[in-house]
Amino acid sequence: MAVYTEVSDDDLERFVAEYDIGKVTAFKGIAEGVENSNYLLQTESGTYILTIYEKRVKPEDLPFFLGLMDHLAAAGIPCPTPIHGRDGDALRMLSDKPAAIVSFLDGVWPKGRSPRHCAELGEAVARMHVAGVDFSMRRENDLRVDAWRPLFESCRAGADDVVPGLEADIAAELDHLERSWPKALPEGVIHADLFPDNVFFLGGRLTGIIDFYFACNDWFAYEIAICLNAWCFEPDHQFNITKAKNLLSAYRRVRPFSETEFSALPLLARGAAMRFLLTRLYDWLNRVDGALVRPKDPVEYLTKLKFHQGVSGPSAYGLD
Amino acid sequence: MAVYTEVSDDDLERFVAEYDIGKVTAFKGIAEGVENSNYLLQTESGTYILTIYEKRVKPEDLPFFLGLMDHLAAAGIPCPTPIHGRDGDALRMLSDKPAAIVSFLDGVWPKGRSPRHCAELGEAVARMHVAGVDFSMRRENDLRVDAWRPLFESCRAGADDVVPGLEADIAAELDHLERSWPKALPEGVIHADLFPDNVFFLGGRLTGIIDFYFACNDWFAYEIAICLNAWCFEPDHQFNITKAKNLLSAYRRVRPFSETEFSALPLLARGAAMRFLLTRLYDWLNRVDGALVRPKDPVEYLTKLKFHQGVSGPSAYGLD
Repeated sequence: MAVYTEVSDDDLERFVAEYDIGKVTAFKGIAEGVENSNYLLQTESGTYILTIYEKRVKPEDLPFFLGLMDHLAAAGIPCPTPIHGRDGDALRMLSDKPAAIVSFLDGVWPKGRSPRHCAELGEAVARMHVAGVDFSMRRENDLRVDAWRPLFESCRAGADDVVPGLEADIAAELDHLERSWPKALPEGVIHADLFPDNVFFLGGRLTGIIDFYFACNDWFAYEIAICLNAWCFEPDHQFNITKAKNLLSAYRRVRPFSETEFSALPLLARGAAMRFLLTRLYDWLNRVDGALVRPKDPVEYLTKLKFHQGVSGPSAYGLD
Repeated sequence: MAVYTEVSDDDLERFVAEYDIGKVTAFKGIAEGVENSNYLLQTESGTYILTIYEKRVKPEDLPFFLGLMDHLAAAGIPCPTPIHGRDGDALRMLSDKPAAIVSFLDGVWPKGRSPRHCAELGEAVARMHVAGVDFSMRRENDLRVDAWRPLFESCRAGADDVVPGLEADIAAELDHLERSWPKALPEGVIHADLFPDNVFFLGGRLTGIIDFYFACNDWFAYEIAICLNAWCFEPDHQFNITKAKNLLSAYRRVRPFSETEFSALPLLARGAAMRFLLTRLYDWLNRVDGALVRPKDPVEYLTKLKFHQGVSGPSAYGLD
């Protein structure tokens, strides 16, 4: 949950007056979203989400994120649609920070994940990957394999205080990942942060994908690997092969993946686990007293990493 | 902002099914309200607030709070109306904690307070006081004058670390307040926490009063004193007599207050400042690393206390 920017009444009124959405009738901070400040905005014309972009998002990336949401929404992907002002712009300043209004999506993010959720997710991710193919903008993934070692160097000194032996574990795994990481795989726009709190469901059906602020160009199969980690482990960190099978088979019914992509999954899943292990470790060691963001436990991703280190091949994920 | 209780999808569905409000279409934590977890709940029939009562609210007080909102809403006070389930109850359990659904109020709490806000507030508070007269339940104020010294004793050791000399300042003021505190004044149900984030406005008109979880039986004039402190000081802690005059004169047009009440205002304002100084000091000294609640600055209320110590009489608040 973000550090909230306090918006003055006059600033809000002026901001909303730039759009054709009527006057404000309610405005409340939402306790979701770690990177930005999100507000529920109700106006005479309906319900919206207003986002103020805080410092973890680079302003120069915002046209990519908003353009992508425009593109995907137009292609029928259930994602927030940026609302454009009378001047045509979806992005403007509020309280001296970049801000945008997007459509409100019905749905609730799932506190537990069932095999059915995983099947719905797989299908939606594949549809999103296909829909993104003709999106014309590009953004590099700044948390790819070559970013992991510098991140590790910045926090290795505290690693063994979190789990004894963690520094050596990460160092050895990084050596392996850097040596073995694929050179090329089919790529396109990926969401790159498809955790359950970014996916809404109603009555078992997926109704929304939100929070595109890590989206970038990267391998499709790497997104699948992130999803395997985020959706297919139980609360006790045991891997659930039925969920993985549902995710992968639903995905490939929409976008068949190649043998190369499939074979790379165990390695990509290790890499995806490493990426979140490192950012969580960094946030854990650099947590700020009094901040409103509660850092997530890095150990969860160490456990996931060890699982993927132990699999004999991609069939461990439920497909032949 | 509260420590949020995570509600499972099944629990939420079962809970909402006890009401005649249709199925859930959205559910989001709201980053407002310090004592409880508040969620925006949208269903097929509209928008509501769902509150889960966390440990700072005593379960045995909940029938008073919910009954009061029912009573005031029926009398036309713009406050949340508890939604009753098919069994007639407004209070039931969710995720092993007491919880209730109330109506959603339009409006935005004012980040700045204008003299007009203060006039609107004064009128609404007086109407609320009048409407509460025939409410049949009773709840003592557990933060009255006799509660201040034990609270002070629990945190006096750390006071001088916050502001040098604070311990002696509070001790002397407590002596004065205990000696001079009025024996009796006209009383009834008061809200007892009418800070700007608990009052909504739209287009300059007051549209809602929320968060009745400190409401209790106490002197009407003590509520006015709390409002003077919360609404009539500028961000630089200078007292604004125009705002105070607006608040008091709008109040007394609806409920004329007696000469005794008026004369007591400076003392009550000192007491009200002491009450919030002490609870803020306590929270400041007992803040928890990693908690989502950011404690409020106690020094603000020390400044307000000193202002009221220096006034020559109630005419300092703008009325003759």
